[in-house]
Order: sequence, then C-alpha cells, then structure tokens
Amino acid sequence: MNLKMIFYTLGRIIGIEAILMLLPLGVSMIYGEWNTALAFLLTAAGALIISAALYCLTRNRNKTIYAREGFVIVALAWLSLSAIGAVPFVLSGDIPSYVDAFFETVSGFTTTGASILRNVEILTRGAAFWRSFSHFIGGMGVLVLMMAIIPDEDGRSIHIMRAEMPGPVVDKIVPRVKNTAKILYLIYIAMTLVEIAMLCFGGMSLFESAIHSFGTAGTGGFGIMADSIGGYSPYCQWVITVFMLLFGVNFNLYYLLLIKRFCSAVKSEELWAYVGIVAASVAAIVVNLGNMYSTFAETLRHSAFQVASIITTTGYSTVDFDMWPGFSKAILLMLMFVGGCAGSTAGGLKVSRVVLLFKSIKCEVRQMLHPRAVTTVKFEGKPLDEAVRSGVGTYFALYALLFGLIFLIVSFEPFDLETSFSATAACFNNVGPGFAAVGPIQSYADYSGFTKLVLSFAMLLGRLELYPLLLTLIPSTWARKKK
Amino acid sequence: MNLKMIFYTLGRIIGIEAILMLLPLGVSMIYGEWNTALAFLLTAAGALIISAALYCLTRNRNKTIYAREGFVIVALAWLSLSAIGAVPFVLSGDIPSYVDAFFETVSGFTTTGASILRNVEILTRGAAFWRSFSHFIGGMGVLVLMMAIIPDEDGRSIHIMRAEMPGPVVDKIVPRVKNTAKILYLIYIAMTLVEIAMLCFGGMSLFESAIHSFGTAGTGGFGIMADSIGGYSPYCQWVITVFMLLFGVNFNLYYLLLIKRFCSAVKSEELWAYVGIVAASVAAIVVNLGNMYSTFAETLRHSAFQVASIITTTGYSTVDFDMWPGFSKAILLMLMFVGGCAGSTAGGLKVSRVVLLFKSIKCEVRQMLHPRAVTTVKFEGKPLDEAVRSGVGTYFALYALLFGLIFLIVSFEPFDLETSFSATAACFNNVGPGFAAVGPIQSYADYSGFTKLVLSFAMLLGRLELYPLLLTLIPSTWARKKK
Repeated sequence: MNLKMIFYTLGRIIGIEAILMLLPLGVSMIYGEWNTALAFLLTAAGALIISAALYCLTRNRNKTIYAREGFVIVALAWLSLSAIGAVPFVLSGDIPSYVDAFFETVSGFTTTGASILRNVEILTRGAAFWRSFSHFIGGMGVLVLMMAIIPDEDGRSIHIMRAEMPGPVVDKIVPRVKNTAKILYLIYIAMTLVEIAMLCFGGMSLFESAIHSFGTAGTGGFGIMADSIGGYSPYCQWVITVFMLLFGVNFNLYYLLLIKRFCSAVKSEELWAYVGIVAASVAAIVVNLGNMYSTFAETLRHSAFQVASIITTTGYSTVDFDMWPGFSKAILLMLMFVGGCAGSTAGGLKVSRVVLLFKSIKCEVRQMLHPRAVTTVKFEGKPLDEAVRSGVGTYFALYALLFGLIFLIVSFEPFDLETSFSATAACFNNVGPGFAAVGPIQSYADYSGFTKLVLSFAMLLGRLELYPLLLTLIPSTWARKKK
Repeated sequence: MNLKMIFYTLGRIIGIEAILMLLPLGVSMIYGEWNTALAFLLTAAGALIISAALYCLTRNRNKTIYAREGFVIVALAWLSLSAIGAVPFVLSGDIPSYVDAFFETVSGFTTTGASILRNVEILTRGAAFWRSFSHFIGGMGVLVLMMAIIPDEDGRSIHIMRAEMPGPVVDKIVPRVKNTAKILYLIYIAMTLVEIAMLCFGGMSLFESAIHSFGTAGTGGFGIMADSIGGYSPYCQWVITVFMLLFGVNFNLYYLLLIKRFCSAVKSEELWAYVGIVAASVAAIVVNLGNMYSTFAETLRHSAFQVASIITTTGYSTVDFDMWPGFSKAILLMLMFVGGCAGSTAGGLKVSRVVLLFKSIKCEVRQMLHPRAVTTVKFEGKPLDEAVRSGVGTYFALYALLFGLIFLIVSFEPFDLETSFSATAACFNNVGPGFAAVGPIQSYADYSGFTKLVLSFAMLLGRLELYPLLLTLIPSTWARKKK
C-alpha cells in the first residue's frame, strides 16, 4: 500500500476544499454575517495547514498506485472532506452538534439532501450557501474535480476515476483522463449556469437561483425553504423538473452531442429506458392521484416533479408526497432504488444496471427454453461478457446485503418499519427524504447520534458505489503486496 | 410442445388428488359432518371424471418431453390442483366465495399458510383437515409424490423434478428418479409420524396433532386456533419449534444420515449457515425483547419459536410478534427472504442461494484487490463455475423484480406500506402472516378479490421458484420447436 501517495492526494484535496470555502466566506461577508465568515476563515486556514503538512510529509513519494490505492484514496477523500466541511457549521453556531453537522455535510457532498434541521429557514446565508454548494462539489465527484484542475501524474487518475464515477462501466471519453475530467466539468458548469439564468428569469433572486441550481445539478436536494420548492411558481417548478431529469442523464451523452455525434447519443439504450421509466411512472401517478389537486395541469406538474426528483435521487418536493395514496408512494419507493443513469450525478442502482439485470433474466429464460442454443446479451450495441453480467449480479447482491444490514441497525430506533425502511432507502440511494417520520416535511433530527453516523456511512457507501468504502474497511486491502 | 404428455400428466395428478380427498371425506364422516362429506365426495367424483377424460384423450401420446414441457407441467399441475382443491370449501359452505377458497387452497398447497378466514375456529373438522393436509401434500411437491407412486417413464421425471424442487441445484440421490422420490417421501412421512406421536404425548388430541404436524412438515402454518400455537403448552411449542427447524433442512442430508454417511452430512456448508443464522437471530431477539416476558425461559421460547417459524417460512406463532420492537420485527422481515435450506419444504430465497451470493461478493472483492490473480469460489467442496454464479445472481434479480411488481399491485389497496410490503413478502416467500394489517392475529380477508388472486399468483411463483409459472406465461414457450 503506497501510503505516501494516499496522503499526498488527500492533502491536495483538502487544500482545494480550503480554497472552495472562500466562496461561502464571500457570501457571508456580503450579507454581513461576520460570525459565519469567521467560521469559514478559521476552517479554511486550518485546512490549508493540514494540506501543507501532508504535502511536506509526502515529498519522497513513489508515484505508482494500483486499483486498491484508488479505492482507499476515494473513501478517505470523501470522509476527510466531510469531516472538515462540517466544522464551519459548528463554529458559526448554525448546527451546534458536530455529529449533526457531519451528517448534514456528508448528506451535502454525497448529494443526498437528507437534513437534521427542523427548520432550515433560520440558517445564516453563508451556511446555507456552503450546504448547497457541497452538492455542487460532490455531484460530479470531488476527485474528478481535482483531476480537472491539477496536472495529472501518469497511471493514477484512471484508478481514481473508476473508483469514483457512478455506473458499471467507465469510459475515458478522450484519451487523457485529465481532459475527460475537464470536459465533464465544463458541461456541468454550463448546464448549472443555464439553470441559474432560467430561475432568475422566473423571479427567483440570484441567491435562491444559485442554491436551487446547485441542489439540482448535484441531484442533492438541499433548499432554503421549509416547503422545499412548493412555494415557488409553476414555471420555476417546471424548470427544476426538467433540469433534474437532465442532470440524471449520462454526461457522456452530452459530450457526444457537443462533438455532433447525435446518432450515437440517441441510440443509447440506457437513455430510452430512463425516459420510459419516467414517463410510465408519471402517467401511473397522474391516474392514481385522480382529482386530488384542482386541475389536471397541477396534478401533472406535481407528479412529474416528484418522479423526476426521486428517480434522479434529488429529493426536492413541491407537495408532501407522504400524503399520497399507497400505490403512488410504492412507485416512488421503487424509483429510489432505480436511480438515474450511470455517469450522471444521481444515486441509486443506476438505470444501466437495472437494464443489464433485465437482459440477464431474458438471457437466462431463453437458455432454459433452448438449453443447447448459444445466447448472447448485447448492451449499447456491444455483446456483454459473462464477467460484466456476473459483476452486475454480484453488485446487486452486495447492495441488497448492505441495505439489509443498515436497515437492521436503523430499526433499533423507536420508529415504525416504514420510517426505518424508507430512511435507509433514502440515505443509501442518496435521495434525501423518505416516508412517514422522515417524509418530505419532516427531518432526521430525532435519530440518535449513532444512527446518524450509520446513515452518514450509508450515504457514503451509496455515493461511492459500495466498493471503495468497503475495501477500505477490509484489513487485507492494507496488507503488504505479495511479491 | 408435447401437449398430450402435459394433459396426460395433469390427468394423473388430478386423479391422485381425487383419491387423497377420501381422507378428509373420512374425517368428515367420523365427526358426523355429512354436508362437508358430501362436498368432498362430489368434488372427488368430478375430479375422477376429469382425470379419466384426460387419460382417454391422450392415449396416442409421444413420451418424449423436454425441459419446457417440465416447466409447463409443474405450473399447470399446481394451478389445477388448487382450482379443484378449492371446490369442497365452497360446496360445504365453509368458505362461500370461490376466490377466497382458491386463495386458501393455493396458500395450503404452496405451504404458505396465509388465510382469508377471520375466525378459523368455525371451520368444520373435515374442511380444517383438508386445509392442513394440503400443506402436507404440497410440502414435498405434488409431482414428486406422483413420481413416488406411479411407474416412471424415461426421461421426463428429472425434468419435472428439476422444475419443482426448491434450491439452485437438484441431485438425484439414487440413480433412478423414482427411487429418489420414494426415499424422500418415506423420510418425510416418518418425521411427520414422529411429530404426531410427540405432540399426542404432550396432551394434544390426535386430530390436533395431525393438523399441526401437517402444518409443520410442509412448513405451511395453517392451524385451527385463533391464537395459532399460543394456547398450547411450552412442551408442545418446543416440539413444534424443533420440527419446524428439522423440516427446513435439506432432505438429502437425512438420506446421507440414513446410509450412515455422517461426515458428508455434517460437512454441509448450507446446514451450518442455516444453524448460524437461526442462533444469531434468536440471540439478537432475546436481547432486544429484554424483559417483555416474565421469565428468560419464556423469552427464549417465544424468540426461538418465531425465528424457526419465519426462517422456515412456516408462519405459526405463539405471540403477536407484530407487537415486538422494530429491531426484532426487522430481523423477522429479513428472515422471510432468507428462507430454509434448498431441498427442504421451506420457501424464501433459500440459505444456499444466500451463501452463494456471499461467496460471489467475496470473490469479486478479492478480484478487485488482486486483479491479476485467479480466484475460484467453492461451495459444498466443489468449485463453482461462472454459470451457476451468474445463474444465482440472475435468479436474485428476477426475484427482486417480481417482488417489486407484486408489491406495486398490492399497494393499490388502502393499507399502509408496511402492510403491503409485508403481505407481499409473506406470500411471495410462502411464510403466511406479515405485519400490521396482515399480522399474525389478522387475516387477508379485507383484500379485494383481485389482490387475493395476485397474492395467490405470488405464492405459486415463490413455491415453484419463479421460472415454471413465468415460462408458462411466455408465448415463445408454446411456440413450435424449431427443427
């Protein structure tokens, strides 16, 4: 295990975090919140010192790293970013308890959007900005960000990128990883800016537009209003609906559009599956809601918003969907597990994995009917080998196993099974709100400190797609490499 | 598709059902329930006529059948047995609605034990006997029974047995399928007789002992008391606990014991996993219940009984476990999905599949740490090939998918998510009682006719391990074989 390279990378990423904290520092100063500004200044200074110390300590490093270093770097990077990112909330007094602040920050970076705040409206502007900005940072991956802005050292980048990017298969869209990261970040920033502009056009203030665009871009879901997006105009709600869905699409497709390979983009099987699931879910919920709302347009708007919010694991809401009939709630619960497309900022299992599992089933059934025939499964035009198929099956099994374990621990709390189950699903899939006691107008405030840490762990597991965090906890990962 | 062989086999199995109905007919006559006796007599006569007609129609049959005929035979056999088995309940007036009677009979044959009866104690003796006897028939598999008593025709038996027996791999324990079926049935009957004797010894009447032994042997769970096993002595409760666990073990192990290959039996990885899960669950629940009951002995008894009942998917209860704290309920919910061992009478995913999924995960993790190393997974001493691994993964995915679909349909009913989810889990895994509105002291009476049919379908899907019923519904199964 190349510890020096691990610490070196951690040092750099902590340094970047310190610099990023200048933004909420600026926001605090603009609004005259000197207390909050001081909190960010102190934390940024502390982070810079840690970063410098790590840099000095790791000067004689060997630059070669392997897959396992990649996993450990990713896990520790997200953990330390969250640990440091929580400090300003405590120092400013916005969230006095460190465990609560840690939960909130993990929820921010993992783009979950689950909150321990009973009343989000009393946050200082600086703290609210940092909370939502963490969605933006976490959305595309903090390490992808690092690769985009720091000269890459050969060999290590792809290991980190593979470990961090969501979905079963990672492509370098251009030969150099650094350039891939840059392109992805440029698309991401451009789309966010368009959303900010469109929300401003709809009458939101610049501050609110930025907050909600960060929440949408990262598919996070932190807002600044107690009723989430419910109080904004239908126009703003539709804009957010569309952008949530756009940020749930594989970013490689946007790159294909940029280089004018429209045909390849439109042929994506995952995209059509995603569109199909969204359309079917919205239609089913519209029918199920009947005349719960006064007009058809309103029913359609709320259905589309909630479906987009849950399948992309954003977690914004325009109504208290916990009050919806059981069938609609069951659809939302299932969408939490599906999640967005691979290579997007969304959580969950990812549409491509669901499609792959479907294809495996089809293949198995065909093999049963024609035991001697040779059957091949194709995905996105390429034949799938047995290794990818069994890899997806194993991922799903591990996912179910970890889900079960977390659910067991969470059910120690004195809530009903619906609360425990949906809290686990909402955190593990990085959605945010669940049902019943953790519904959209409730919060995670009543959970014990221990459960909050377990749920934080669940959010990290889900965001990093299980393996990085799991491998970091296994002793044999840290064992000396056999010669 | 060899339709004649399919109808021929159906005819024989319906004939066997007609003969088996003589038993409840006798019970009704002993207790002087002439109305019920007449119902069984009429149904048996009708079944015999159908059987004879099918026999006549299929005289010039070609005896060759393939895997797909095996699947279709299994699916249609269970459907027609249930359809005919439901008739006496309607004729005798015990269950006036046919849909209700069908649900109850499917629940019986699939050894689920879910009931639509609000008060089970008003059933006539004959009807109660048939209801529980269907557990006994369904437990070891109705087609295995047929093979045990009818001369086998080459080639077809193993296809049917593979399609019907639970678990990922089916072994013929002796070279001829017919003999394997006979040996399994002899062990099954012997164990049931021992249980009847032990319950009689504990003070139960012969009738009650038989009813409860049928329910235990098939891991079904139909009883004749409103409080299930709660009113019987601790001795009887412990006897049933032990026998539930015994009937959840792979029957091949008993055969190994019979032929004195103790070492092979004791080496079974699945057995130890099963024992481990049971012990850990009982311990966790005992701790979690604390001093809910007056003595430690009582706590241990109730914990062990409920764990044994749920993991073996029997569904008997000694207390209303829906009142237990969330953690204990969460454990029970997870056990519903695990189920008993492969080759037992239990439902659920089966312990061997869970172990296989675990091993796949371990293998995947090892491959990530050492990408160039060759890793093999062993199960029960034999190396597992990629096909079995990916088969288990696919099975699990299909299982989750079908579970989701059934859950969605069931959630149309005006119950909370906990009820819908646990009702789906309890039927799909052939457990019986769930939580909340379908808890152990409740029933499925309040569901609509449509949902009762959907849940009946779920029970059959679960009992037949998904594929037979699913393949029967696919048009391409019925297509002409390509030359």
